[in-house]
Amino acid sequence: MTRLVLKFGGTSVADTDHIENAAAKVAAEVERGHQVAVVISAMGGVTNDLIEYCRKVSPLHDAREYDAVVASGENVTSGLLALALQKRGISARSWQGWQVPIVCTDMHGKARILSIDTTEMDGRLEEGEVAVLAGFQGITSRNRITTLGRGGSDTTAVALAAALSAERCDIYTDVEGVYTADPRIVPQARKLGKVSYEEMLELASLGAKVLQTRSVEMAMKKNVPVQVLSSFDSPIGSDLPGTLVTREEDIVEQEIVNGITYTKDEAKITLIGVPDIPGVAAKIFGPLAEASVNVDMIVQSRSQDKKSVNMTFTVVNSDLQRAVEALKKCDELKKTEIRPDEDVVKVSVVGIGMRSHAGVAQTMFQTLADKGINIQVISTSEIKVSVLVAAEYTELAVRSLHTAYGLESE
Amino acid sequence: MTRLVLKFGGTSVADTDHIENAAAKVAAEVERGHQVAVVISAMGGVTNDLIEYCRKVSPLHDAREYDAVVASGENVTSGLLALALQKRGISARSWQGWQVPIVCTDMHGKARILSIDTTEMDGRLEEGEVAVLAGFQGITSRNRITTLGRGGSDTTAVALAAALSAERCDIYTDVEGVYTADPRIVPQARKLGKVSYEEMLELASLGAKVLQTRSVEMAMKKNVPVQVLSSFDSPIGSDLPGTLVTREEDIVEQEIVNGITYTKDEAKITLIGVPDIPGVAAKIFGPLAEASVNVDMIVQSRSQDKKSVNMTFTVVNSDLQRAVEALKKCDELKKTEIRPDEDVVKVSVVGIGMRSHAGVAQTMFQTLADKGINIQVISTSEIKVSVLVAAEYTELAVRSLHTAYGLESE
Repeated sequence: MTRLVLKFGGTSVADTDHIENAAAKVAAEVERGHQVAVVISAMGGVTNDLIEYCRKVSPLHDAREYDAVVASGENVTSGLLALALQKRGISARSWQGWQVPIVCTDMHGKARILSIDTTEMDGRLEEGEVAVLAGFQGITSRNRITTLGRGGSDTTAVALAAALSAERCDIYTDVEGVYTADPRIVPQARKLGKVSYEEMLELASLGAKVLQTRSVEMAMKKNVPVQVLSSFDSPIGSDLPGTLVTREEDIVEQEIVNGITYTKDEAKITLIGVPDIPGVAAKIFGPLAEASVNVDMIVQSRSQDKKSVNMTFTVVNSDLQRAVEALKKCDELKKTEIRPDEDVVKVSVVGIGMRSHAGVAQTMFQTLADKGINIQVISTSEIKVSVLVAAEYTELAVRSLHTAYGLESE
Repeated sequence: MTRLVLKFGGTSVADTDHIENAAAKVAAEVERGHQVAVVISAMGGVTNDLIEYCRKVSPLHDAREYDAVVASGENVTSGLLALALQKRGISARSWQGWQVPIVCTDMHGKARILSIDTTEMDGRLEEGEVAVLAGFQGITSRNRITTLGRGGSDTTAVALAAALSAERCDIYTDVEGVYTADPRIVPQARKLGKVSYEEMLELASLGAKVLQTRSVEMAMKKNVPVQVLSSFDSPIGSDLPGTLVTREEDIVEQEIVNGITYTKDEAKITLIGVPDIPGVAAKIFGPLAEASVNVDMIVQSRSQDKKSVNMTFTVVNSDLQRAVEALKKCDELKKTEIRPDEDVVKVSVVGIGMRSHAGVAQTMFQTLADKGINIQVISTSEIKVSVLVAAEYTELAVRSLHTAYGLESE
């Protein structure tokens, strides 16, 4: 008896027709003899409407009340999917976070799951009842409702799969899986059959909006295989129609490079003429940390006059204004020119096989150079190389790299 | 320190502007030094949308899942009102049924409240925090969500007022109070200052859609004074701008007649030629009871041939078809003509002073006779007289009676 957790996102339950479609997917797994728990998001757009209500009523809102309001969309869809399953003759019931309960930290709006008590659900799954859990929500130890942040239903699904010792967590979404590149930019992009947790983390945090980063971290930590697949096109019957995110050791043929990603969510700040004195970096980055600005890529270079240095780093776009203001208050930067630049893109090459292969970065630099694309900043990790380039080169860079690493063909 | 429960219906919280308006009403009571608990409905129309979703997904739905879905609208408005109060600097928090908890019977869709644990809420009210409770919902002893039926928020409000030993329960709605007649039919109708529970029960169940009948029953049983008032027009500051529903003994000047009501929710069935044998009434009404048809007014008369009787009675409109089918199956009625008629209206005269005054019914019959309105069936209770007349006379009957009992002037 295999136990599965299926998760349906907002576009997969956008209206009652879509909910019927989701019920058909669940029914197919039940008919194969599996025990099935489902995690469900609110109807597409509903959570945004609820957030907008909160903003209208009170821009500076109490996060506990905000959570009570925005968590309600999942209560609707969980009940409706249970009804749709019952209509098909399948025993099913809905669960809200407090009914399980799913106990979370009291960081309202971005809580973390502390525990899931599956005692009752376990027994009901054994009896063949499908559990339909409202995603995204939980309760604090003080019985207040809390939410996990945008995309939190992915995290609920993976956490539930771990708590239920499920064999796999299937994330139904509006794409067919994880691709070697964004298919809107690279039409020849190929769906990956398998990808490791580590790669998926890089792909997720680098802009592939397929899975919430935290859910991948949790899947890796708890060792839950996660399949990303389409609610709409996946042929029922084929064994693993989507992309399986799993342990590195479970992937037999490891590609050197598995994907090219890009994110426009970065902005660059260049400081021209930073005094070349010991400890100046701490004086700069201290205030940024205090202003809750996360700094990503950093590069330092000697300026032409040799008496000072230039420094370039990136921050997320939404932090740019705050970062610039914090820097302007720095005594050490009084004579320094601060140049913000939002017209940049971070392009990354990701692949677990890089660990054992040299020359991956070199291929990247050469490819971009051949196309006349200037690299502004570079950063690397064990399994990825990222470069910052002018935003206008986004498509050219991604397509050239996709070809350079031979990702089109199997 | 006076403790009040305020209830806002769906039209009073239809959007965020209306919610701000409700917050202003609550704030006014807080500023007067009162401890305030609020009970709130879903935004106007939302519950209907949720019911429609359930119908679409599964016409024959599991009432437990239906309840989980339709109860969610109140979670949104309770959180939003708490936010709107906080913005005004008023300490407030939302409560959902399970958080109190409000424990109900497991008759899903029409549950009754068994207990309200106010231990925590009591303490918070003492500290000056406003409680905003989601109306209409509760939980069963098995932790499933349940609802109290349409208009159930009124019942939640009265039950909470009783549990909190509140001085009064104010029901904010879209009318200014209880009127001597429907103002759409009788423009001279007068708002009543006070009305007894018993009269309100008759008025409520006879078609004045101001308060849910069950909430009035509960108010009477628990002795909770209930004020019906407008969310929109009530002048803040005036002491009791609406209609107070209270104990008979608290009403000094009792009017003989307090209101003229009508309901078109009745249908008449006439049986021509019922065999005049002992026990035939039981043979007729037994099958109706088995078919869950409630019979209201009954009149029996000898037919012209003197060998059989004719029988006329009323049922609620929605039961008419079922009633006729049940009657057709009766062996005793094989030769009886069954005449259903939906074009009828029940007009009633209600007043607690009737108990000690004769001639009230006579005035009614004479007034209708003077206008040439034929009375088809009559029924009476201690404090009301009802007649069934052809629906086309609705306005004429109500207006004539309103004048006949001198209800226009104080």
